[in-house]
Parts: sequence; C-alpha cells; structure tokens
Amino acid sequence: MFKLKLPTDPRWVNIVEKNISEILTDHAWCEQKAASNAISLIVRFPEYTEMVKVLCDISREEMEHFRMVVEKIENRGWTLGPERKDEYVNEIYQFQRKGGTRNQRLVDHLLFAAMIEARSCERFRVLSENINDKELAEFYRELMISEAGHYTTFINFARKYATEDDVDKRWEDYLEYEAKVIARFGKKETVHG
Amino acid sequence: MFKLKLPTDPRWVNIVEKNISEILTDHAWCEQKAASNAISLIVRFPEYTEMVKVLCDISREEMEHFRMVVEKIENRGWTLGPERKDEYVNEIYQFQRKGGTRNQRLVDHLLFAAMIEARSCERFRVLSENINDKELAEFYRELMISEAGHYTTFINFARKYATEDDVDKRWEDYLEYEAKVIARFGKKETVHG
Repeated sequence: MFKLKLPTDPRWVNIVEKNISEILTDHAWCEQKAASNAISLIVRFPEYTEMVKVLCDISREEMEHFRMVVEKIENRGWTLGPERKDEYVNEIYQFQRKGGTRNQRLVDHLLFAAMIEARSCERFRVLSENINDKELAEFYRELMISEAGHYTTFINFARKYATEDDVDKRWEDYLEYEAKVIARFGKKETVHG
Repeated sequence: MFKLKLPTDPRWVNIVEKNISEILTDHAWCEQKAASNAISLIVRFPEYTEMVKVLCDISREEMEHFRMVVEKIENRGWTLGPERKDEYVNEIYQFQRKGGTRNQRLVDHLLFAAMIEARSCERFRVLSENINDKELAEFYRELMISEAGHYTTFINFARKYATEDDVDKRWEDYLEYEAKVIARFGKKETVHG
C-alpha cells in the first residue's frame, strides 16, 4: 500500500480499543488539521488555479469528516476534548526543505500532505481490519478510501507542477524518512500514535 | 440592516468598478478568512457541540464561496493573486476583551464574527444594487443572503451560551465601535476597504 516502508503492527489496535474516546478525539483533530493544511497550501500557492480548486474540495471534505467524527463522539455520550498535538505530523513536517526554491517548497508541501494521507490511510485500514467495534470498523473502511484518493491527488499535483525535482525520487526520500519516524510510534491510542 | 450605525456611501462602488480584479481577489481571501475563523472558533471552544457542528457547515460554505470567486476570476482570464491583509477586520478584532473569562472570550469571538458578516452583507447589498456588471450584481445578491444567515447564527450562539454578558448590550458596544472604524474606510476597491 503506497509502498510504505514500515507497516503498522496490528497490536497498536489493542491499545486503541482500550480508549475509543481518545482515538476519536485525536482523529477529529487530524481531520481539522488536514482541512487547515489544504487551506494553507492555497494561501501559499494561490496562482496554481487547478490545484486551488481541488484543495477547496479537499478542505470541505475534511471538515465533513471532522463533523462525522464529532457526531460519533456525541452519539457515545462524550464531548470533543481539546485539540491534540500530533508529534508524528510535526516530525514529517520537518523534512520540508527550508532553503529551497518556491517550486521546491510547493513540491515538499504536497509530498508532506501525501505522506500524512498515505500513513493515515494505512492506519485506518489496520483499524478497520482489526477493531472489534463493528460501527467503527465500517467507518474507518470508508475513510480509508477517501484518504487514498487524497494521497493520489497530492502526488499527482507534485508531478504536474514540479520544475526542478524528480518527484518520484523525492517521494522515495520521504518514504525512507517516514519509516524512520514511524518506527518510534505505534504505542499510543492516537491515529499516528 | 442589522442596525449598522453607518451605512456605506454608494460612491464606494465607483471605486470598486474601476478594479474588478482587485475586488474579486480581496473577496476570495475574505471567504478564506471566514472559513479559517470558523475553524479557529472550533479549536478554541470544542466543548460546545451544537456550535461546533454548525461552524463545520459554515466553514464548508465559505470555502465553497471561495471556490466560486476563484472561478469568476478564472473565467475573466485572471489568476488569484496573493492573500490580501484586511485592516478593517484587524481593527474589529482588537475590540475583543483580552483579560475576560473564557465565556466572555467566546461571546466576543462570536460577536466579532457576527460584526464582520453583518458589514460584509451590507457591502454585498450596496454592490449588488449599484454595480453595472449584471453577473456580479446577481452574484453579490445571492451572497448577501448567505452572509445574513451567518450573522444571525453567530449572534444566536452568543445569546445561547453567554453566562456573564448581556449580549444585546455587548452587541450595541460592537456596533458603536464598528461605526467609528468604518468611518475611516470606503475609499478602496476591497470588500471592507
């Protein structure tokens, strides 16, 4: 799946199952962050009209997912808690080249987004295949499909707009870096924990 | 209309009409800022479940409007330019009480949002009634209705959740402050210019 170099150990789901309230809360904030990240790509690179329009749609879809998770939280008698920080996302973010050209920054921002979507998709698949809660298994199966679509969209825009990078090679670098980061995770009841 | 204390001088439309590209660009970024502001209310006050769900819908609607404006820009052969700062919005933002309680900060953030929606709605009405461009006159008439709905939503949540403020009195303070701010505007080809 997306050639991720390190699959998630399914025992992570055992940790998640002990704290459904926490995975849902963290998940809601992941969707909000994905929406905000799409908007931040628009603000940074408004001249790429085709991408801007697709990012609008993605941001709207992520906020729709956010709402769906909030409703799951509400239906179980809980209330959405404060925003969770996401150490994994922050570490992947660091891999963007600070000193690069504008075009390289665009490619990196798109590959950063693709990387998060790819791992989230894998995590949702592992959840849907291993969680005992039938409702959530189905929910995560549906979201998995959506995240896979976003992953492809981000990679394709990077390939389309790159003028200085070999995007496939840069993506390979991202995959290698990500494998080293994720190796230290898998122990917490969060989407990327 | 919303008891705004200072109506916009319709001669502002004469300035706007000389630079349609600029009003559309500024307008697109107003929609993006409105979406981001709805998300920021969610992040600050996630425990108000009913409000959170409605803010999701508002953020999605604002990003849909953003996309519509981007398409208008594209159809006229232009490209969306860089984000515009909004001095008017920044000045209204200053009226929020920094040292207040959490509940007062919620009320102020909601009234800040209501204030911007109310003035934007008035500006869209003035535009739709005075602009010679038929397509834009109709476009701004439709958006005016949507902004009026948002204004009401924000005020109503302030009334519903306020525990320490007389919201109608605080809203009166906002209206008075806003009238003093807007008196210095009306000279530029932007939504709040």
